[in-house]
Amino acid sequence: MNNILVHQDAVNADLNITQRLASMHAADAIELLNELELTDIIDIFNEMPLEHAVLILDQPELHSAPAIIKSLPAAKARDILDEMSIDRVTDIFQEFGPEDRARLAAGLGPETTAALRKLLRYPPHTAGSLMTTEFVSVPSGWTVAQTLQHIREVERSRETIYAIYVIDPATKVLLRTVALRRLISSEPEASILSVGRDVAPVVVTPLTDQEDVARLFRKHDLLAVPVVTDNNQVIGIVTVDDVIDTMTQEMTEDTLKFGGMEALNKPYMQIGFFQMIHKRAGWLGILLLGEMLTASAMQHFEGELEKAVVLTLFIPLIMSSGGNSGSQATSLLIRALALQDLRLKDWWRVALREIPTGLVLGSFLGLIGVARIAAWQMLGLYDYGQHWQLVAATVGAALVGIVTFGSLVGSMLPFAMQRLGFDPASASAPFVATLVDVTGLVIYFSIALVILSGTLL
Amino acid sequence: MNNILVHQDAVNADLNITQRLASMHAADAIELLNELELTDIIDIFNEMPLEHAVLILDQPELHSAPAIIKSLPAAKARDILDEMSIDRVTDIFQEFGPEDRARLAAGLGPETTAALRKLLRYPPHTAGSLMTTEFVSVPSGWTVAQTLQHIREVERSRETIYAIYVIDPATKVLLRTVALRRLISSEPEASILSVGRDVAPVVVTPLTDQEDVARLFRKHDLLAVPVVTDNNQVIGIVTVDDVIDTMTQEMTEDTLKFGGMEALNKPYMQIGFFQMIHKRAGWLGILLLGEMLTASAMQHFEGELEKAVVLTLFIPLIMSSGGNSGSQATSLLIRALALQDLRLKDWWRVALREIPTGLVLGSFLGLIGVARIAAWQMLGLYDYGQHWQLVAATVGAALVGIVTFGSLVGSMLPFAMQRLGFDPASASAPFVATLVDVTGLVIYFSIALVILSGTLL
Repeated sequence: MNNILVHQDAVNADLNITQRLASMHAADAIELLNELELTDIIDIFNEMPLEHAVLILDQPELHSAPAIIKSLPAAKARDILDEMSIDRVTDIFQEFGPEDRARLAAGLGPETTAALRKLLRYPPHTAGSLMTTEFVSVPSGWTVAQTLQHIREVERSRETIYAIYVIDPATKVLLRTVALRRLISSEPEASILSVGRDVAPVVVTPLTDQEDVARLFRKHDLLAVPVVTDNNQVIGIVTVDDVIDTMTQEMTEDTLKFGGMEALNKPYMQIGFFQMIHKRAGWLGILLLGEMLTASAMQHFEGELEKAVVLTLFIPLIMSSGGNSGSQATSLLIRALALQDLRLKDWWRVALREIPTGLVLGSFLGLIGVARIAAWQMLGLYDYGQHWQLVAATVGAALVGIVTFGSLVGSMLPFAMQRLGFDPASASAPFVATLVDVTGLVIYFSIALVILSGTLL
Repeated sequence: MNNILVHQDAVNADLNITQRLASMHAADAIELLNELELTDIIDIFNEMPLEHAVLILDQPELHSAPAIIKSLPAAKARDILDEMSIDRVTDIFQEFGPEDRARLAAGLGPETTAALRKLLRYPPHTAGSLMTTEFVSVPSGWTVAQTLQHIREVERSRETIYAIYVIDPATKVLLRTVALRRLISSEPEASILSVGRDVAPVVVTPLTDQEDVARLFRKHDLLAVPVVTDNNQVIGIVTVDDVIDTMTQEMTEDTLKFGGMEALNKPYMQIGFFQMIHKRAGWLGILLLGEMLTASAMQHFEGELEKAVVLTLFIPLIMSSGGNSGSQATSLLIRALALQDLRLKDWWRVALREIPTGLVLGSFLGLIGVARIAAWQMLGLYDYGQHWQLVAATVGAALVGIVTFGSLVGSMLPFAMQRLGFDPASASAPFVATLVDVTGLVIYFSIALVILSGTLL
């Protein structure tokens, strides 16, 4: 008796959830689904009307879409795939193994199959990998009224209808991009070519990097951009919602890289323990090997260290200041290069700015350092020995040198990365700090040898 | 004669540039204008047709817009301001002093004046500061055909027409958001309320943070979002192009903050020398003061340092490993909190993951450290003394402790920032490194005291 009641409750709960999902925004429904177990999600999708299932599976925010599609009955899965946005179907197919791809592709409609084959070709992070083939294009001979009628007919199956691509009927070349807003306020009998300003359409190629695509959207306030072949024939479009997702993903990747680790594109709690170790250990190991040069540098100055132990007290302070000024300069230049405020050829203008900037900042820190040593000595908090003024001078001068060096290295590193064909955002704060540490020690001890020779050294 | 020729050339050049600008994308025209001197730009605007001047001044990418408006004849400036997007006019007025505001506001149309007065009220970084009042709204009694006719009439003066807001005529409350794409494929005689899905509209308030606005656009794939009062009356909209600009600006700010400096929102080369110093010196100084605690810590272990100078050789290596692991953890958690993959209340789940992660990563680095010391000793590259095995064990154990501590501190800092009401992105890599350095030294020397006591110490 009790069992039956429990079962009835579960059925009611299921009914409730399907009804609740139907009345929600797709995005909210997805947040709810992301919390559930896969088996429950599949039960829900088995009950859900086709149109609603398509609406939800079309959103990249649903974590388990490939698993859901795989687990649904093949006929149902194919119906859904045929109705979904082709760019999203492509993303899901990217996650399948060869068997699942073959099994599910078998029964798809010819249009979906052709588009899928085309889109699966493009490497990730390119316009081709973001694009969809579901756009509106019309021949250049049409009128505004004909175009509007066509749009009404195809609206349901297109990713966006707010940008209309006007094509030369003979050569299939893109002639003009027309905004729907201009179209609906134009005379119905006017030629489609008379709508809007006569400027060359903004286009990208399938291999354009997604960061460059985002830059074009920002620059031209686009809602969509056509992807064209070398002959200027439109093969797809990238829409603004995908660009926003891309920007968010790039921001995560860049932050993690700047923090000194490999990019991850899963939520923190969903990354497996060993995967997390793997993504972090690589750079930590490399940085440790680099930092070992500091031990070598210090071994080289072993004699000085033994004679003047007081010098070791300031090693962490001096080294970290170099790393900090380097980290500042690197973050500045990563963004300046990403925003194209500066180009590769501007490196020397930056160097000419960073050197005086570093000298001023270093002098500021140097003064604080000297004041600290003098204060402790005079207040009797610590005794830096009879030559404490010379020790203070050494620390002050070393800070000037190291902060200047840090600013210069930190600002040049993103240029060097770009020159070598890497993303300038790969220049991480820990990497800069490591570069600066080794040289910083050499600068410190060299200055000490000059100032303290004949007294402490 | 020569002078006249030169003058003629200049006139031709001017003509050329005005013509060239007219045939360009607004964004490209702006890139060209941004390279010119202000006086030349003003000459060009004096000649430019009103519509084109409005198109160009409407783009936030034009650097000198406030200066241009101020320098144009007042009547011309007002004509332009009356035609421009009201959100852009607000941005420009934000940059004016009180006199310029009064002078230019005086002759503006009553609609512009009212909207401007409203928009100038909202603080920066809020939906109110991003919004425009130029949206399409229709009463709920209208049909699809009536709505389309209205859109055709007002299209030119609206920021977007792709989202239409359906309002209760009595209470002015927002009932429904309708997408233009659904509208144009609906029956003309249908009620506007029958178009699209019946779900509660996604809305923001004027004080919603711009990061939350961006999050909603990403989640719901929006092109615009209505800004509503507490009574759910629409007072404006935020459009996707402004959200993309905001995301880019946030990304720059977050990168600079993570790099350990104050945010700047001007291109690198346009920041004055002393402004640059000012933005960098503050954090560098604070970090230096924090790092001075390392000198205090080392003074405390002075006796140990004198007895075992060999220990100093590994200070930079050990400290930097703690900073690096902390920087990794901080970057991970900044993004997890920004993407709302994790909430404040999840801090203990993160701590429970970071401790074992840190132990594994620390053991990995510790093994490398021990191997390095053993290799140098056995290959005769350096002599770490008769107790070199114990020195190696000290370095290895210290790396385990410090990397674990760094991972924990680095991951908790963004939570602490958020708890204290700051942006988690304010937890910079240099800040984490400084926090870890001081404790790292204490860990190192404490481990040394345990392992080396009775031999070296």
